[in-house]
Amino acid sequence: MGPFSFIKHLKEIVLSRPEVSASAADNTLLKILYNRRSIRKFTPKEIPDDVMAAILEAGRLAPCTVNLQTWSFFIFTPEEWKKCIGNPIPFKGNRAVLVCGDINRVKPVLKNMPDCPLFEYTTAVINASLASMNMNLAAEALGVSSIMLSETGKTGYFYADYLQKKLDLPNGVFPLLTLVLGYAKGGYPAMPPKFASEYVTFKNKYKKTPMEVTSDWFDKMTAGYKFTFPLKTFKGQLKTYNEHLVDAEEALKKMVFHYGSSAPEKRDSKGKMKRP
Amino acid sequence: MGPFSFIKHLKEIVLSRPEVSASAADNTLLKILYNRRSIRKFTPKEIPDDVMAAILEAGRLAPCTVNLQTWSFFIFTPEEWKKCIGNPIPFKGNRAVLVCGDINRVKPVLKNMPDCPLFEYTTAVINASLASMNMNLAAEALGVSSIMLSETGKTGYFYADYLQKKLDLPNGVFPLLTLVLGYAKGGYPAMPPKFASEYVTFKNKYKKTPMEVTSDWFDKMTAGYKFTFPLKTFKGQLKTYNEHLVDAEEALKKMVFHYGSSAPEKRDSKGKMKRP
Repeated sequence: MGPFSFIKHLKEIVLSRPEVSASAADNTLLKILYNRRSIRKFTPKEIPDDVMAAILEAGRLAPCTVNLQTWSFFIFTPEEWKKCIGNPIPFKGNRAVLVCGDINRVKPVLKNMPDCPLFEYTTAVINASLASMNMNLAAEALGVSSIMLSETGKTGYFYADYLQKKLDLPNGVFPLLTLVLGYAKGGYPAMPPKFASEYVTFKNKYKKTPMEVTSDWFDKMTAGYKFTFPLKTFKGQLKTYNEHLVDAEEALKKMVFHYGSSAPEKRDSKGKMKRP
Repeated sequence: MGPFSFIKHLKEIVLSRPEVSASAADNTLLKILYNRRSIRKFTPKEIPDDVMAAILEAGRLAPCTVNLQTWSFFIFTPEEWKKCIGNPIPFKGNRAVLVCGDINRVKPVLKNMPDCPLFEYTTAVINASLASMNMNLAAEALGVSSIMLSETGKTGYFYADYLQKKLDLPNGVFPLLTLVLGYAKGGYPAMPPKFASEYVTFKNKYKKTPMEVTSDWFDKMTAGYKFTFPLKTFKGQLKTYNEHLVDAEEALKKMVFHYGSSAPEKRDSKGKMKRP
């Protein structure tokens, strides 16, 4: 990417705004919702306990499939995170909430449920994610910024295996992401490059996004990444992820289908996974 | 369940409130967030186009893993839903948004990504769910109520197979849930029975929820269900779900691992699924 193209892409990122009518743009809650950003710089200021409690309450009261509440939240101070995970909380966050999908709690009272590990996993992941977004916005409403992480510093489903062992997670509890919380240092960054609504909203039939649109998004991501992290590249970052993916996939499969290298008898003759 | 126990459980449901400090309870956004309920009765009032656009914009701008925007939204009027799905929009909703996880759009530019279908699915499901919650709250902020559905009337991942065919979804696009939207008819119902925070938030180690706590939740669900739908039972509803689960699980596996009954060669000798 040449300097001209780099500047063009950066300009487009900086100038992009939510596409809403004037009435919606004036709505206090919508403003918070549209202006929310993933924050990577926090001040040392402590989040008061009652503010943390109000954020977690938004997770506890999130909507969910059949009110099954298939989630669990692990709360960490910086010291607790360091002790448990080995690294500091990413970006010097003041609190971390590891969000897990959790079908373990209600499973015993859901009688006569057939064997359906992928279905259970999907239910758990959907609901835990709804709870995460609810907490993220509750935090914003209280002036607390955050970022949701799946990879940086063993924070989510990239490291399911590790977190499962570290936190004593039983079958049916799936680490997904960590909500890193704190008070933002400096202003909020520009909105990252988003696909135009015509490529993500459809009537009746799916339409493939043209390759030039996806490539343009990739170029903008590359330019934005270079601007934010001058010593890194977006491609390099993706390469780092790719290096984890084979292990991550294997760990997820083990976790979801309850099989392990020590338990080959858990597959039947057709290669299907059996529930232990 | 006897009548005394029924009334006791109902009373507990009706009296339960969000557990937050006074300062948090006064926050305008938090009030909307805590008071949000799944609504099952809508007036015939039309949602204006600019309001729908503002709701969808909250989906488009939701946070997501590496800004991959792994989602797609299908928008339906009642007539379009009826024509496509065969039933009216559940609960006479005025608009329906079918939310799909979608890794199809960005996949072509994510070079050298190893084969990791479960990882891709997890990414898509997490992000599409974050977008769903964002849209749900944007709707509330604009006075529009909603319910997220996975089952009623072929609305989500209970019917992945059906929706995939009906909407021409390519590999990597996963129907998850339908956000049914409209203006609420009558007041908001009581908060459904939630597990106390001590059972969903943890420090360092996972703690199993005691069986009596889960059973008590189940009894409350049973009582609440009986009160809301006098002719049905919670157990009966779960039984209805259970009857779908074997098919739903098979459809999800096909969708996630890209195999079909016509393609047994897509499993290798160890029974592992191969990418086509």
